[in-house]
Amino acid sequence: MDAKALVRDAHPYPSPCLLLDLAVVKRRFTALRQALPEARVLYAVKANPQPEVLAVLAELGCEFDIASPGELHLCRAVAGRERFLSYGNPIKKERDIAEASADGVGLFSVDSPLELEKVARAAPGASITVRLSVSGARAEWPLTHKFGCSSDQALDLIKQARHLGLTPRGLSFHVGSQQTRPQAYADAIARAAHVFRAARAAGIWLDLLNIGGGFPAHYTHEVPPLDAYARSIRQAIHDEFPTTPPELVVEPGRYLVGDAGVMVTEVVLVAERPHERTPRFVYLDAGLWSGLDETMGERIRYAFYVSGPARDHGPAVIAGPTCDSADILYRHDLTSPSDLRPGDRVLILSAGAYTATCSTVGFNGFPPLPTFVLDSSKDVEAARPTDVDAVPES
Amino acid sequence: MDAKALVRDAHPYPSPCLLLDLAVVKRRFTALRQALPEARVLYAVKANPQPEVLAVLAELGCEFDIASPGELHLCRAVAGRERFLSYGNPIKKERDIAEASADGVGLFSVDSPLELEKVARAAPGASITVRLSVSGARAEWPLTHKFGCSSDQALDLIKQARHLGLTPRGLSFHVGSQQTRPQAYADAIARAAHVFRAARAAGIWLDLLNIGGGFPAHYTHEVPPLDAYARSIRQAIHDEFPTTPPELVVEPGRYLVGDAGVMVTEVVLVAERPHERTPRFVYLDAGLWSGLDETMGERIRYAFYVSGPARDHGPAVIAGPTCDSADILYRHDLTSPSDLRPGDRVLILSAGAYTATCSTVGFNGFPPLPTFVLDSSKDVEAARPTDVDAVPES
Repeated sequence: MDAKALVRDAHPYPSPCLLLDLAVVKRRFTALRQALPEARVLYAVKANPQPEVLAVLAELGCEFDIASPGELHLCRAVAGRERFLSYGNPIKKERDIAEASADGVGLFSVDSPLELEKVARAAPGASITVRLSVSGARAEWPLTHKFGCSSDQALDLIKQARHLGLTPRGLSFHVGSQQTRPQAYADAIARAAHVFRAARAAGIWLDLLNIGGGFPAHYTHEVPPLDAYARSIRQAIHDEFPTTPPELVVEPGRYLVGDAGVMVTEVVLVAERPHERTPRFVYLDAGLWSGLDETMGERIRYAFYVSGPARDHGPAVIAGPTCDSADILYRHDLTSPSDLRPGDRVLILSAGAYTATCSTVGFNGFPPLPTFVLDSSKDVEAARPTDVDAVPES
Repeated sequence: MDAKALVRDAHPYPSPCLLLDLAVVKRRFTALRQALPEARVLYAVKANPQPEVLAVLAELGCEFDIASPGELHLCRAVAGRERFLSYGNPIKKERDIAEASADGVGLFSVDSPLELEKVARAAPGASITVRLSVSGARAEWPLTHKFGCSSDQALDLIKQARHLGLTPRGLSFHVGSQQTRPQAYADAIARAAHVFRAARAAGIWLDLLNIGGGFPAHYTHEVPPLDAYARSIRQAIHDEFPTTPPELVVEPGRYLVGDAGVMVTEVVLVAERPHERTPRFVYLDAGLWSGLDETMGERIRYAFYVSGPARDHGPAVIAGPTCDSADILYRHDLTSPSDLRPGDRVLILSAGAYTATCSTVGFNGFPPLPTFVLDSSKDVEAARPTDVDAVPES
């Protein structure tokens, strides 16, 4: 999407809202397929479960990774009964496992003995992968410290799965979301290969490796190109599995939809707070409770775009519209045009992932963030079909 | 609500959900009225806008503080056209000010020149209060650094309001939510009185002082009794306004509804993570995205209640059900029964404030947290009419 065109064209849209360009999703999926043709692609539905997104991905042959019964129902409704689904959340209620199994979900992820027992009871004979804990260093949104087990635990779980009548297919891992270091995949693949070899020594042949998501969207920092990730992954697979490579699965979420979204917001107020370290506060009509959860700890640094000619910038704090002081998006290292005024439109770029579903049902009485779907490759009314290329304001 | 009775009786309720006891809300309102009969009570709707809560408070004569058009519509629908409303959010869209003014909202809060100009344009002649920045020290959920202005700025705004044809009624402040230090009010009242005197010297007689909310609910830490707050406030008003005290307004939110709520949750998984500092992870079916936002930074420490006889406890990390590693509620200083198992019910006590509206529309495909309203003073099926008195698990 061309952000400048959007500012021009955004006036029919209410503020705040999320605009989602299906053309970007399709381009990204195609790029990933070309870069890693040896991998099955499972879209991490949680990144953005907008039905139109699932539909275009399904049309292109994408499969899906789900986190809950809600996502199961959605995928079935959009992509049909036959589409391959993986239940990647290692924390599932037993009745949800049973429902998913009855509904044909083909693969379950586990990382603990009690979860394995639940799967064995609720989905007898099911295929499972064991989630390995790997480093999340250099991921802007790390996913360690909650999921995953050690190599020794993984081996125990694989043996136990076999003992319980399940089918241990292989391993999964996640190097962290918005992973900025391609080598992270190679390191994790090496760890996984070690477990594959140990399992083989114990008489269990594993044949599937799910290397998760983590491929970055383009926020304010430069990120390596997709090819760098593909090279790192391919080389590691070649080195670690020289004779029979496992079936490779990737689970992109942010990479496919992040850059496809633009959040339209409006300046509600600009205020000088001389007693604060950065005195200039810009208040938008979207904030931490309208889907900008990933600004927590200022981890994801969205780029802002304001229309108009180049002009003076000054340091600014960016805050949301609620009465809550935790609703401050950025305090540090941000500037905004000095003449920003209430009513001005501010676009938040690359806001397609982990936003709309994160907006609250009504904190402070503000309604959830609506999504408008367009396709810049088809719709002449839509923004021009180039990726977001605006100069970030920050 | 009696938590033990709730565990017994909670099985008809789905998990997760929020149970809200109107009897507690009524008792709290009455207690506040008795402790501070000289104050007008405006309920901070944002704490929990459940219509039944607004209705019982309206019936008792309560007025309302709103943060948005959504809360305006809700209050009008439940409490009628004549009920006094204050628009306490100092960050408002101009069109929202106009709508509120047309709908009879009686008071607007401002803390910056641009906001004052918006109110002057959209609500000519309106009554305003200026929000003063005061210390949020010893508040467990501080509200500084986003709102409020200095004494000098406040005086300028008051003069400017007069100049713009508005009616400057007085000042407001907020000492922070879950404020554990009664003296915080006295200190803030002294600061406000200074501005009252300066305004009088400039020929402007202010007659209203809004001392905000901040009165605590009862989480795991002991908090001072309401009377301690009332004494501190009354003494400060007596000392600082010896001749003509201003009209006093309080805006409780958490104090009225916090202890009226119990969140019903279910254990989804218990896992040992030997590579983590606290290896035992208890995963619940409610988390950061299901309304437990105030666990961010572990600031609000909810008490947990698990039924059954006293038993061994061990350190535990408590996490939510999503695939996101940020969905960890507590890492530190928490214990849970060592024999907790998937399927067990865990109650989160005093969860009536800032929870249900904070749950997301569907992060990870999990539906929003539903609320069930009961009245333990009327409904023999409901829990017994005593405040939550369970021994916290933490």
